[in-house]
Amino acid sequence: MNTDEEPGVVLSREEAWELLQGSRFGRLAVSVANQPDVYPLNYLATQEKIWIRTNPGSKLAELTVNSLVAFEADGLSDGTAWSVVVKGVARILESQTEIDAADLLPVEPWIKTRMWTHVEVTPASVSGRRFVLGAEPERC
Amino acid sequence: MNTDEEPGVVLSREEAWELLQGSRFGRLAVSVANQPDVYPLNYLATQEKIWIRTNPGSKLAELTVNSLVAFEADGLSDGTAWSVVVKGVARILESQTEIDAADLLPVEPWIKTRMWTHVEVTPASVSGRRFVLGAEPERC
Repeated sequence: MNTDEEPGVVLSREEAWELLQGSRFGRLAVSVANQPDVYPLNYLATQEKIWIRTNPGSKLAELTVNSLVAFEADGLSDGTAWSVVVKGVARILESQTEIDAADLLPVEPWIKTRMWTHVEVTPASVSGRRFVLGAEPERC
Repeated sequence: MNTDEEPGVVLSREEAWELLQGSRFGRLAVSVANQPDVYPLNYLATQEKIWIRTNPGSKLAELTVNSLVAFEADGLSDGTAWSVVVKGVARILESQTEIDAADLLPVEPWIKTRMWTHVEVTPASVSGRRFVLGAEPERC
């Protein structure tokens, strides 16, 4: 077996979650009427959820129509790249108790703002891979 | 007007495309039955299209069901962050003439592989923003 043909190393859910916890910047993919859209944002992975702060806007409007989302974060370290994808359900926090609790989390919106809305993503699946970077082999 | 409340600077299509051309790593968001998914990948932005090489797999299967995609790339420079999102239609190249032409483009798959499939994304929209990074102001 030629290891060049291995499509990266599949990470365990625990390894993938640990990488998510160590990063702060990701992208949220949403879809309305089968048209995907994707947003860069800061996040916090804790309490087995992804926490996001966002401005009111089209992102939130799309979550109201379709709460199914995919979230991705990636990074580089020691000559390897990693990527983790979480598929799950997003929910806008509405009760004051939840909002007060979420206000205590150290999540920064990417855009400076005085207003924000809290969104939590509850993972249905967490998958991660790690890849060794380098030149590709000759094509067969 | 307080500039802290500005949600970044909207880039022209030309500025956004120039940033895309200068980068090589992005993420492709797809959606099947309203379930978004997102994949990290290398790309090349040229000839007014996004060019991708990928392994046969779920990504391609999803494109066959729904060719509407969103593609995102982002980066940091000089204390500012940028993000560009392309919404468009993906197409798997099938004719040998197209494949031969695409083989000449310097696109590297993220995963080392000897096999690949060429995908082109024709943009319907290109939108970009640039943000000054820094601490957020106090919430009102």
